[in-house]
Amino acid sequence: MTSPTPDKITINGERLWQSLMDLADIGGYDDERTGLRGVNRLALTDTDATGRRQVIAWMEQAGLTVRIDRMGNIYGRREGADPTAAPVLTGSHIDSVATAGAFDGCLGVLGGIEVVRILNERGITTRRPVEVGIFTEEEGVRFGTDMLGSAVAAGRLTLEYAHALTDRDGLTLGGELARTGFNGLADVRLDSPHAYVECHIEQGPVLAENGVEIGVVTGVQGISWQEITIHGRAAHAGTTPTHLRIDAGLAAAQIIVHLQALVDSGEYGDLRATVGHLIVHPDLTNIVPARAELTVDLRNPDDVQMARAEEALAAFLRDLEDSRPGLSLTVRRMAKTAYVPFDEGLQKVIAQAADDHGLDHISLLSGAGHDAQEIAVLCPTAMIFVRGEYDGISHNPREYSTPEACAHGVDVLATTLLRLANQD
Amino acid sequence: MTSPTPDKITINGERLWQSLMDLADIGGYDDERTGLRGVNRLALTDTDATGRRQVIAWMEQAGLTVRIDRMGNIYGRREGADPTAAPVLTGSHIDSVATAGAFDGCLGVLGGIEVVRILNERGITTRRPVEVGIFTEEEGVRFGTDMLGSAVAAGRLTLEYAHALTDRDGLTLGGELARTGFNGLADVRLDSPHAYVECHIEQGPVLAENGVEIGVVTGVQGISWQEITIHGRAAHAGTTPTHLRIDAGLAAAQIIVHLQALVDSGEYGDLRATVGHLIVHPDLTNIVPARAELTVDLRNPDDVQMARAEEALAAFLRDLEDSRPGLSLTVRRMAKTAYVPFDEGLQKVIAQAADDHGLDHISLLSGAGHDAQEIAVLCPTAMIFVRGEYDGISHNPREYSTPEACAHGVDVLATTLLRLANQD
Repeated sequence: MTSPTPDKITINGERLWQSLMDLADIGGYDDERTGLRGVNRLALTDTDATGRRQVIAWMEQAGLTVRIDRMGNIYGRREGADPTAAPVLTGSHIDSVATAGAFDGCLGVLGGIEVVRILNERGITTRRPVEVGIFTEEEGVRFGTDMLGSAVAAGRLTLEYAHALTDRDGLTLGGELARTGFNGLADVRLDSPHAYVECHIEQGPVLAENGVEIGVVTGVQGISWQEITIHGRAAHAGTTPTHLRIDAGLAAAQIIVHLQALVDSGEYGDLRATVGHLIVHPDLTNIVPARAELTVDLRNPDDVQMARAEEALAAFLRDLEDSRPGLSLTVRRMAKTAYVPFDEGLQKVIAQAADDHGLDHISLLSGAGHDAQEIAVLCPTAMIFVRGEYDGISHNPREYSTPEACAHGVDVLATTLLRLANQD
Repeated sequence: MTSPTPDKITINGERLWQSLMDLADIGGYDDERTGLRGVNRLALTDTDATGRRQVIAWMEQAGLTVRIDRMGNIYGRREGADPTAAPVLTGSHIDSVATAGAFDGCLGVLGGIEVVRILNERGITTRRPVEVGIFTEEEGVRFGTDMLGSAVAAGRLTLEYAHALTDRDGLTLGGELARTGFNGLADVRLDSPHAYVECHIEQGPVLAENGVEIGVVTGVQGISWQEITIHGRAAHAGTTPTHLRIDAGLAAAQIIVHLQALVDSGEYGDLRATVGHLIVHPDLTNIVPARAELTVDLRNPDDVQMARAEEALAAFLRDLEDSRPGLSLTVRRMAKTAYVPFDEGLQKVIAQAADDHGLDHISLLSGAGHDAQEIAVLCPTAMIFVRGEYDGISHNPREYSTPEACAHGVDVLATTLLRLANQD
């Protein structure tokens, strides 16, 4: 059967933009530091639940059949000419960090819904079903494990593990799913789609530096998150001789400086290291810190180099502990993902769609983690990156992509999904 | 006139101990980290006001005439045979840090009252009046400047400056004095006493290491407090190449490590350096810190060496700022006190009193700041240190001196005050 449907579609950029702004109002707050309007919609809070209900309403208005699984992942399905064919899946997440902008994750979800609206308006029936997914707790900020909903959907983590995770107040994810009404009945293990394509803001400066709007993502670099807790001994700053101190804050600083030395050495490939969380206790001017806590975020596009960097850090921690009797360190693994290469065939489909829309593009690696890296074990997967302003700042109210950049990214998504959904 | 009064007196240790325990109940809390009962009686809070009223009641029960000055400093006066003679002053403070024990400051105040009780019971009339002082906001934790009440009483800081200081909630010290009813009418500038002697716990390990109970304090080392705020730029941990980062947390760590190098170099005399307060913002695992704040507490018994150490730190901060375009540092002076040597004649009186009570003693420098260093500009001043357990830990619920150690310290105080009050 030869399809009479078009091979390229263009979305309604204004409508897409309006939906991004409307969703950003849910959880919107006045950010004191930037003077801007920010978004705070942590996973499975009341605010996130309000956002979920709004997006489900938009899905239903677009004619999608909505199902919710036992992780609270939401799927909206547009039926295809062959309902038995594996669907083409798109989507992302709508939960946010505590100081977020309007675009991270939301662009992929609302972009997917916009593609469905355009397919409806154009009267296009694709061969395969098209589904739009919203994955629970992608950020990992509330329950400590990122890409959580997609990781359970893809079978990497178990439902029991995820449900038992707790937030800072001791509330379990399972309990919060029930409380917010998003403990769905659908099987959490996702049947393998035909393909998964996720549109997302870059969250980095590379597209802007290269003067292009579209990035074809080649894969996601490996991520390692560890939490280090250091136990020393509180002591008065004035009366305790230096040789009698066990300073947990000093040990934390030594770890941070050493991490930077590992990066600067160039011996661990394209390693990036960040200590974003750092606290000391009791946090008083004239008390030597008794305890310090920090997180170490390592990124590397090479799993072997990542393992070497982790071992170098572990060796430093052992030496630090041995060097100071009374000092003790505990390390907790928060997250670990390997390098995930994306499907080369899909990357070609995306690049061709960008060309057909007259949009310049480059290939690049993702520095951030995304739901796509989880779904990649189920089916051919790739991502489309949209350029951000201000060095691609993200997880910040200054996060911004222009209406044109968003529309162009979702144009590429639309044509890509259309072509994939008509594949045999 | 030859006095028939005794030359040595011994106090009631049980009564002293009971008053220490009773005062610790005011502001007492269950400390989660230590499992012990702690004290939280920040200056001019409702809790501090309750403590002040309790101690004033004890003063009045001991027959003292109480006056309160415009800084809320409280003085209880026991008249002498010659009411025109300059009084011998003792005392300390009863405000505490947020996680305190029962002894810091309170021993000096309650010890002074116990000496008065014994003088009363023994029917002793001294030639000079004896006064017991309670100084406001010695800790500096609430309004940011320590030894505040005594500094104004001694004329180093002005009343206007002190009244305008604010706490974290923006409340002024002047307003809190009025609110708690401790905005007294007495002139804040203290007429020069004949002498000032303060009994205090050591808050350090030196007496215990030397196996003695009594320390004769030779002076207070210089103290420098600075707050450093570092402004960098928030960035995503995964997507921002290392060369594009302006990491405020890394800069903070470099400062901490460099401070330790200054100490370890041995080039700045007996320098001690502490970073007790350290925060980063936004304090999220996968965000490069945009901002960091830390305090630097330097101690040195040599003012020239202290100045050299401060200049070495300032030079490092300038180099750090220059090394990274976009990084900016601001330094705020929180406190600065010079080395204060105590009166050698008074030290001899204290040492003799200890000998006469059969107590071993050593001379040592105070690492912590005390009200005595302020009063020292007005009159001959010295201090008596009492041994602490657990390496002399202080500013912590584990702070502990035995009932015997406290009683012995106040025995030495009593005999010292008696002899000074009978001097011409």
